[in-house]
Amino acid sequence: MSILYDEAIDGPLATFAKADVLGDLQQHIPTLTLLHREEDLRPFECDGLAAYRVTPMLVAMPATLDEVQALLKRCHALGVPVVTRGAGTGLSGGALPLERGILLVMSRFQHILSIDPDARTARLQPGVRNLAISEAAAPYGLYYAPDPSSQIACSIGGNVAENAGGVHCLKYGLTVNNVMRVDILTVEGEPMTLGAEALDAPGFDLLALLNGSEGMLGVITEITVKLLPKPEVAKVLMASFDDVEKAGQAVGNIIAAGIIPGGLEMMDKLAIQAAEDFVQAGYPLDAEAILLCELDGVQADVDDDCDTVRNVLEKAGATDIRQARDDAERAVFWSGRKNAFPAVGRLSPDYYCMDGTIPRRELPAVLNDIAALSRESGLRIANVFHAGDGNMHPLILFDANREGELALAEEVGGKILERCVAAGGSITGEHGVGREKINQMCSQFGGDEITLFHAVKAAFDPQGLLNPGKNIPTLARCAEFGAMHVHNNELAHPDIPRF
Amino acid sequence: MSILYDEAIDGPLATFAKADVLGDLQQHIPTLTLLHREEDLRPFECDGLAAYRVTPMLVAMPATLDEVQALLKRCHALGVPVVTRGAGTGLSGGALPLERGILLVMSRFQHILSIDPDARTARLQPGVRNLAISEAAAPYGLYYAPDPSSQIACSIGGNVAENAGGVHCLKYGLTVNNVMRVDILTVEGEPMTLGAEALDAPGFDLLALLNGSEGMLGVITEITVKLLPKPEVAKVLMASFDDVEKAGQAVGNIIAAGIIPGGLEMMDKLAIQAAEDFVQAGYPLDAEAILLCELDGVQADVDDDCDTVRNVLEKAGATDIRQARDDAERAVFWSGRKNAFPAVGRLSPDYYCMDGTIPRRELPAVLNDIAALSRESGLRIANVFHAGDGNMHPLILFDANREGELALAEEVGGKILERCVAAGGSITGEHGVGREKINQMCSQFGGDEITLFHAVKAAFDPQGLLNPGKNIPTLARCAEFGAMHVHNNELAHPDIPRF
Repeated sequence: MSILYDEAIDGPLATFAKADVLGDLQQHIPTLTLLHREEDLRPFECDGLAAYRVTPMLVAMPATLDEVQALLKRCHALGVPVVTRGAGTGLSGGALPLERGILLVMSRFQHILSIDPDARTARLQPGVRNLAISEAAAPYGLYYAPDPSSQIACSIGGNVAENAGGVHCLKYGLTVNNVMRVDILTVEGEPMTLGAEALDAPGFDLLALLNGSEGMLGVITEITVKLLPKPEVAKVLMASFDDVEKAGQAVGNIIAAGIIPGGLEMMDKLAIQAAEDFVQAGYPLDAEAILLCELDGVQADVDDDCDTVRNVLEKAGATDIRQARDDAERAVFWSGRKNAFPAVGRLSPDYYCMDGTIPRRELPAVLNDIAALSRESGLRIANVFHAGDGNMHPLILFDANREGELALAEEVGGKILERCVAAGGSITGEHGVGREKINQMCSQFGGDEITLFHAVKAAFDPQGLLNPGKNIPTLARCAEFGAMHVHNNELAHPDIPRF
Repeated sequence: MSILYDEAIDGPLATFAKADVLGDLQQHIPTLTLLHREEDLRPFECDGLAAYRVTPMLVAMPATLDEVQALLKRCHALGVPVVTRGAGTGLSGGALPLERGILLVMSRFQHILSIDPDARTARLQPGVRNLAISEAAAPYGLYYAPDPSSQIACSIGGNVAENAGGVHCLKYGLTVNNVMRVDILTVEGEPMTLGAEALDAPGFDLLALLNGSEGMLGVITEITVKLLPKPEVAKVLMASFDDVEKAGQAVGNIIAAGIIPGGLEMMDKLAIQAAEDFVQAGYPLDAEAILLCELDGVQADVDDDCDTVRNVLEKAGATDIRQARDDAERAVFWSGRKNAFPAVGRLSPDYYCMDGTIPRRELPAVLNDIAALSRESGLRIANVFHAGDGNMHPLILFDANREGELALAEEVGGKILERCVAAGGSITGEHGVGREKINQMCSQFGGDEITLFHAVKAAFDPQGLLNPGKNIPTLARCAEFGAMHVHNNELAHPDIPRF
């Protein structure tokens, strides 16, 4: 399936010809690797959200920061939009190309510039893979905490752009909580440093603003991350429940007992069965839900916490609790969770992965409502998610070849996200808004807030050349989506560019 | 001593008369408490940084959010600047009034709206005192981690505005890391919610941007903070050193040993002697420096960590290590540190408190350079600070009544901050920029960055009515300060308002 990107709605006006841009760049930056033939461009037409595909006008693959800078300066002069791409593993289409724009691929910047074991920091080029950071830090007994499922492939630059999460984020925070400093090039190609290696930084917190900004504020050229000491020991408990709501309630009770697990994940029956069939993790096939709870730290601590959690789980009505005997069994327990998405993918020709968040206390009620939506729509929905964070990943199963099922899946997905917002949550926990959830932003935010987002964007990029059409919808789009009343097509600040 | 604020440099053009503004507000918001007589205004002429004093035009003390909203709407209509003030304990003049502006005092908003022990959150009005949060959370075994020295008096709204720190911030983060959601009124009086009670929030991270924005982006009306479980046990070690550099080195070694203490504070000889004389904390009067290291968590963990830290301290050359026997002695050990500022204040008619940060590894070298600056200038400098964070608080002792000493103290202070910036640090760790360090911002940042700050400010407040003249210097001011070259008085974006 393929949903074409309607550039006319959100994209800036393009007044250039592809051949002219290509010629200009070849002339000014002769060393720059530029792809321009249809067959070379095709591999870049989507990121991890393959439902959206656009062939970029040109793909630039710079090898040096000088080339990146020169490219930005030329694009700025020519008024050509730029979409930056890391490893292309994003799940919301944040790196979806523009038909009339440059795709700037940063995958050649893969050097770990330095590791300071005393300060517990690592300086990285943006293309360094997430897992490579922990691998390089391992000899010092350190690791990098945020661990998106794609960590073997995704890059730290993309992690910052999407403010990536992962299993460990419950305890150790999102990317924004683990990044100290980011160097960027502005849309004009000027270098700028956000944050510092020291505590805090004066002025407005532009570093936090950059995290999750999806390539709309600048191009990341270097990142300094915090490293953490590897926990002495990690244990995992697997609890079975005969009722999804009970499992949801247990999640809140664990946290309320004063414990923040290293990971606290939930899977429902459909997900359990799919995962078990795929990787034989030893999951209980008769359970309505399981919780996987990892506890890490020093031995005595972890032993105490295991006892407490076991107690909470029993009181919450767990029908069975198993503790992994050793690290090998711990890895097996996790293998089912980590492969849950592809496992569910084997059940159905297509699935649609949601990423809503809710306050933890709302878990039982929202799970109940998702089950009702599944019954009403006739579409199966598997739940696999970061329960401790209240970060849900309902997977809506459908068959795009059946008339109307794609539309129905999208409708159900939209309803789930609206339910998350109504529960005090948000439309994305860790996958970003990108292209996919741009309409839902109109449910999440009012016109004043959207206008403010545009004004902040304009502070960095007045012409709207960096990744236009992602992350922040235009007010016109929100009006069209039906979620916002725009009166006489008037904005609060009519002088703010609409990109 | 009193340094008059030259409003002409940074303040917006005022085209209103005090009597007209007073009349307008009295007419439109008859219930609003407004102070306008000289003797009523005087108590508000400074915040915790008493060196700067300005009598505000009017003081507004609203009792309801409707009054705050109505006030902002009128001020916006009239073009009157607004400075928001919490408890007035800030140390950088962030709440310094404007001679031609309203001082909006939020101290009547003192309700704790709710505490949710399961979600571990508290919803607060902005005037709630920092310590009152932990007191209210105590029955649930919870507390609020950031603990500025002024926590008995300072308010959570001011904490957010200044992104306040404290002893516990090494382990538990600054205010920004402990706030989930903030409700504001914009400069136009429109309500807006930043952040969410759920994990992350889509769009740009405006919540982080608001933290530390010093009242320039909006008026805070409600805050939801995270609460943490109270640690089971806390122990404190006091180590003596015969050399300041050795103590500085030990700080880095503790962190490098994989331990993040609940607090890691350093005091040098002058500070030790002053504190001991003031509160008899049992400090070693012959030591050149002491470290206070608090370890908190579960018993077994804390015992292990105490052994490790003791070992590191011995290897670093500590001449004596004492462990507080019980909570009473622990409180005594801390009393010296917590009273260090007033204790040093007894040594000298005046002192100037700096707040620079540096990467931890630079501690020994920078301490050395501060000692050299003290020798060269003839001014005594006491060091009392959050060593684990690299957040230094050199206290420069001087006598304002002696010809030239104030200027000399300011010069030495400026040099210390420049040394911090050169070491990769920043000009403020937790006290904010406010009015005090506005010139040093020109050392910390280049013209492009300052311009970007102004553009972000303009996104929220195009006319520059909220706390003008604080936090972000004008480029003209930087040029005058000599730290920035402004060519032909031209800015990168000449359309951005200069406030």
